[in-house]
Amino acid sequence: MFEERLNHLRLICEKNTVDAFLVSTTYNIFYLTGFADYIADEREGFLFVTKKGVYMLTSPLYSDAVKRIAPHVTLLLTSSEAWYTDLLKNIIEKENIKSIGFEDQDLRYVEYEEFYNLAELVPFTLRDFRKHKNKEEIEAIEKACTLADELFTYTQTIIKPGISEKEVALEMELFVRHHHAHLSFPSIVAFGTNSAAIHHVPTDKKLMIGEFILLDFGTKIHNYCADISRTLFCGTPTDEQKKMYETVKKAQQAAIDFTKEKWKSGEKAIGTHDVDNAARMIFEKNTFPSFPHSLGHGIGLEVHEAPAVSRNTKDTLDAGTIYTIEPGLYFSGQEGIRIEDMFVIDEHGPRQLTHSTKELIVINA
Amino acid sequence: MFEERLNHLRLICEKNTVDAFLVSTTYNIFYLTGFADYIADEREGFLFVTKKGVYMLTSPLYSDAVKRIAPHVTLLLTSSEAWYTDLLKNIIEKENIKSIGFEDQDLRYVEYEEFYNLAELVPFTLRDFRKHKNKEEIEAIEKACTLADELFTYTQTIIKPGISEKEVALEMELFVRHHHAHLSFPSIVAFGTNSAAIHHVPTDKKLMIGEFILLDFGTKIHNYCADISRTLFCGTPTDEQKKMYETVKKAQQAAIDFTKEKWKSGEKAIGTHDVDNAARMIFEKNTFPSFPHSLGHGIGLEVHEAPAVSRNTKDTLDAGTIYTIEPGLYFSGQEGIRIEDMFVIDEHGPRQLTHSTKELIVINA
Repeated sequence: MFEERLNHLRLICEKNTVDAFLVSTTYNIFYLTGFADYIADEREGFLFVTKKGVYMLTSPLYSDAVKRIAPHVTLLLTSSEAWYTDLLKNIIEKENIKSIGFEDQDLRYVEYEEFYNLAELVPFTLRDFRKHKNKEEIEAIEKACTLADELFTYTQTIIKPGISEKEVALEMELFVRHHHAHLSFPSIVAFGTNSAAIHHVPTDKKLMIGEFILLDFGTKIHNYCADISRTLFCGTPTDEQKKMYETVKKAQQAAIDFTKEKWKSGEKAIGTHDVDNAARMIFEKNTFPSFPHSLGHGIGLEVHEAPAVSRNTKDTLDAGTIYTIEPGLYFSGQEGIRIEDMFVIDEHGPRQLTHSTKELIVINA
Repeated sequence: MFEERLNHLRLICEKNTVDAFLVSTTYNIFYLTGFADYIADEREGFLFVTKKGVYMLTSPLYSDAVKRIAPHVTLLLTSSEAWYTDLLKNIIEKENIKSIGFEDQDLRYVEYEEFYNLAELVPFTLRDFRKHKNKEEIEAIEKACTLADELFTYTQTIIKPGISEKEVALEMELFVRHHHAHLSFPSIVAFGTNSAAIHHVPTDKKLMIGEFILLDFGTKIHNYCADISRTLFCGTPTDEQKKMYETVKKAQQAAIDFTKEKWKSGEKAIGTHDVDNAARMIFEKNTFPSFPHSLGHGIGLEVHEAPAVSRNTKDTLDAGTIYTIEPGLYFSGQEGIRIEDMFVIDEHGPRQLTHSTKELIVINA
């Protein structure tokens, strides 16, 4: 599997007449080696892929772990005498490397400056590199989705008037950790007016009758992520609130139906621009404001990765892509609703991976 | 408080004849504004500090939160029409800015390329910017240290022969989350031969009689971090194992004593190079190998920040610095021991912030 992915990267190099690639994101290092111990926030290693070799440049602190987890890579250790630049220099000379691709959205200015004289440095995004998931990846993500559904079922049992956003978020996290998984991002738990803030961070606000409850959360198992949103109501919603909820649900269904119809009609690369539009049209019809974010996003090792699912992109959904569809309706200072599910395109077309109910769940005192 | 810190940054700019500063790390954005909602892994905003203004450039998703938490900054929102470059351009023209400092260890290549034509971009490390902690910061870190001590007390009650490293790590995390705090990094829990791997990631390995138990863990409260290590023994240690443990303890004490003596002798900026050496000499005396890492590190909003505490630095400990001292003794493939505590230098000199016992704790079946 790693050999196949390394060859994919080498093919990208060949097409772009680049001799080697310096992989720096922890996600791509994991994807190419299975090694996941680096902390994303700190630079703890590089993977250098040449025509002949695969080198992990890292600190002696990781020596044993790399040997155990990624025996297919050549381990080169930094020391006070030999820093990354020195290690790279040796390989470059030995393999007569003239040009090196690098991840331009990740490499720091100071690193670029340091490596600048080693060879011609060629910026790459690699943004489509992990776009198409294989069978094992799809299975891993399905497991994360199953746990996300279970988490939603559990969360319904703890939400009661008087509970705070922070308390709900904590209980959700504990549930996931008890299941030996992680959150894929800090949960959004937003009550009442807070639900209109799209990236709300949970506060001490307590739930009151008459408020929407917006939950946007994710689970991560073996490095693969799920992401799902549901909106509930505490007490009895007004007709207008019911209409708002149903409109978001309809908008999501319109986008889902659109992808299915396109697939049936033989379209094997569905422009996400059109999918986004299919959802937005439902809001327009109901004279509701359009949502100020993308309809969705690709997801895998990262919560946000290719393809983009947005009106501002030419990205497409095709076999092997995994993505979210999450329209929302927000009235700033008042209330917000979002419904989000995950999907994969497999050989039979689009298939939903999260299965929590979308009926408006009402919490009573 | 924020005004004082902003003026500190402006003074750095003035000294370096730079007109403005583009702050990009989530840590420094928090330090200058109190706003902590950005995810460190994704670029969700910049803080642009000029002679006249303080601008938060961010997505509309964060609009309400920034207004609430950081009312002292001018909010400028990105959109599909106005990206960071456009927002910066407006300010640069209005305030006639010719040169901009930036965090060279954080800014990505692609960002540098994007901003390159706006003004002269001047690389900075800002590595000493948060080196000296004020009273509130020291109090915040003391709270984190107290919880770390409590966590160690709790952890002793759960460690038993047969428990796995992963189980211990999970219970530690749950304890911290129940106390409404976070881990400052994933805990290192290492049994037996695993304790020789300095950055060991917990596995399913179960604890057996005759093994060392190395714990290296941290707690984070309101964004400020603690970091502590203790090594326990399961069963009855041999005389050689006791000697190893006592040597690590002695090495740490030698470094602690060294800082206290230097302070008493009137030294107000103690070279960490010498502190590191004071600990290493104890291993040499006992013909044990020296540890393959720094003696310690500064700590605050980040687990690792200035000052460096290492033989490879000219950094110093002085009033307001908070740091760890953590010598270790490792025999690859066999066993490892590390003892780590946190310290502050206040008006009376070095003071220990973590208070867990350093006597060798023995776990019995």
